[in-house]
Amino acid sequence: MSETSFFTQRLAVIGVGLIGGSLARALRESNAVGEVVGCGRDAVHLQRAQDLGVIDYWSTDPAKAVANADMVVIAAPVGAMNGLFEQIKSALSPSAVVTDVGSTKASVIAAAQTVFGDVPGRFVPGHPIAGAEKTGVEASFPHLFRQRRVILTPTPETHADALARVKAMWEQVGAQVSEMSAEHHDQVLAATSHLPHVLAYALVDHLAAMDDRREIFAYAAGGFRDFTRIASSSPEMWADIACANHAALTQVLDDYMQDLSQLRDAIARGDHQAILTIFERAKQARDRLINLAGPNASSSA
Amino acid sequence: MSETSFFTQRLAVIGVGLIGGSLARALRESNAVGEVVGCGRDAVHLQRAQDLGVIDYWSTDPAKAVANADMVVIAAPVGAMNGLFEQIKSALSPSAVVTDVGSTKASVIAAAQTVFGDVPGRFVPGHPIAGAEKTGVEASFPHLFRQRRVILTPTPETHADALARVKAMWEQVGAQVSEMSAEHHDQVLAATSHLPHVLAYALVDHLAAMDDRREIFAYAAGGFRDFTRIASSSPEMWADIACANHAALTQVLDDYMQDLSQLRDAIARGDHQAILTIFERAKQARDRLINLAGPNASSSA
Repeated sequence: MSETSFFTQRLAVIGVGLIGGSLARALRESNAVGEVVGCGRDAVHLQRAQDLGVIDYWSTDPAKAVANADMVVIAAPVGAMNGLFEQIKSALSPSAVVTDVGSTKASVIAAAQTVFGDVPGRFVPGHPIAGAEKTGVEASFPHLFRQRRVILTPTPETHADALARVKAMWEQVGAQVSEMSAEHHDQVLAATSHLPHVLAYALVDHLAAMDDRREIFAYAAGGFRDFTRIASSSPEMWADIACANHAALTQVLDDYMQDLSQLRDAIARGDHQAILTIFERAKQARDRLINLAGPNASSSA
Repeated sequence: MSETSFFTQRLAVIGVGLIGGSLARALRESNAVGEVVGCGRDAVHLQRAQDLGVIDYWSTDPAKAVANADMVVIAAPVGAMNGLFEQIKSALSPSAVVTDVGSTKASVIAAAQTVFGDVPGRFVPGHPIAGAEKTGVEASFPHLFRQRRVILTPTPETHADALARVKAMWEQVGAQVSEMSAEHHDQVLAATSHLPHVLAYALVDHLAAMDDRREIFAYAAGGFRDFTRIASSSPEMWADIACANHAALTQVLDDYMQDLSQLRDAIARGDHQAILTIFERAKQARDRLINLAGPNASSSA
């Protein structure tokens, strides 16, 4: 853990759910924040976040929420970024640093460019690889980001001091921060996160159509449940992500389907050795991954 | 739970691992067995099973192990069935009932037909949908089959009394027994178990090849770990299963890839509504499945 002494006087969190709520809690816990303003579309939800002590004030108006904030964290679905940028554009303090937590990065940068003309130097695109099965502010907790990865994808326009401040904020809450290009981020996440979600949704949907005739699900066991857990994620959020990252996702899906097609041919001809070679290579890779990540890494993203 | 009063004087278990060991333990626990003879290829392993009290005697010779047994359970990989049938063929007592626990059923029936000429009337093909992440007799426990499904796939030749006996044995250890044709079983399991394994192995293998260049796995999160857990299963066992059930597996794989290809096209053209429709249908189906199976169903097969 690097030494950081991050402090924000006024943090605005747009989208007070699991991610936004956990960040606010974590910064509060380490006395790294003066006051937290929450913003969202649902007043009842925001009041609940205030009652829980996650935020100090709230507004359903993004422009009001960001006024006088020195740090703005947009923890909203990637499909909502364009509209939110429009709403906060003229209300942001000139010294405010803005970051987001979206699962795709090129689309968020494109939205910023569309709204602001150029990508603002004080906007630092980010993505914490953290989550949990439960969502919403009720599920938020201050240790969500401990030993989790956060990827920042600065553009050539990004100011060094804004980048350093966002990095310090995430380190303050225990995360390991990496930097890479938005393009690289989107390729990596397309492979490790977006593709598995697509495969799982497609599988469950396919089996559900079969199930009408053959009570498939009655015989589904634990392996199937693990495999398809991600198909219980929010359809809206994942349709947004699939659209926002459609280029990288289509590419990795095509590459994967080519490999799968070869494995399919090996199965069709009963080629035990070819199948075994692939399965063994995969098991070795996954066992390495588990050792890499440690047995307790249980977040989802 | 139906009322059963199953008793076997001498049970032979060929393959004393998680499944065979758990069955022996469960029958012992309910005083439903006189003595248990274990059989396998590894004497050290068999001695360990004896030391653990799972079996009373052991032999590495299947013919010796089944002699005078009234119930024979073959808990060996599906690829080994042909050879095992050959080895026990002339040693079986005429009154012995034989069953297996293989993950594919048509291939096991074909093996019996090859070896015995006709499928023996006292052979009852079976498949307990139960398992756990750990394998081996050390991981076996008597409650493994409680509230688990066991599928029996009798042939037209199967004697009713042999079928009833195997059914009673599994009910004795707490399982819910269903009957269906071997062909139907192989289609259902191809969809819910074999296909997910193939998809997971193929994904991890594909990403491992990408990973050489782009450190993919460093950013893999919990969703990916759940999704690929089954790719840490035994490659030998699963290559056996993929070959043994290659016809049904190829069919469901082709059907799935057709659906996936349509979803891929929707993603490529950024068709939010088409993607959302599929994701929503899948989430609803999976949420129904979870309610069906209950939150504690955690076995794998």
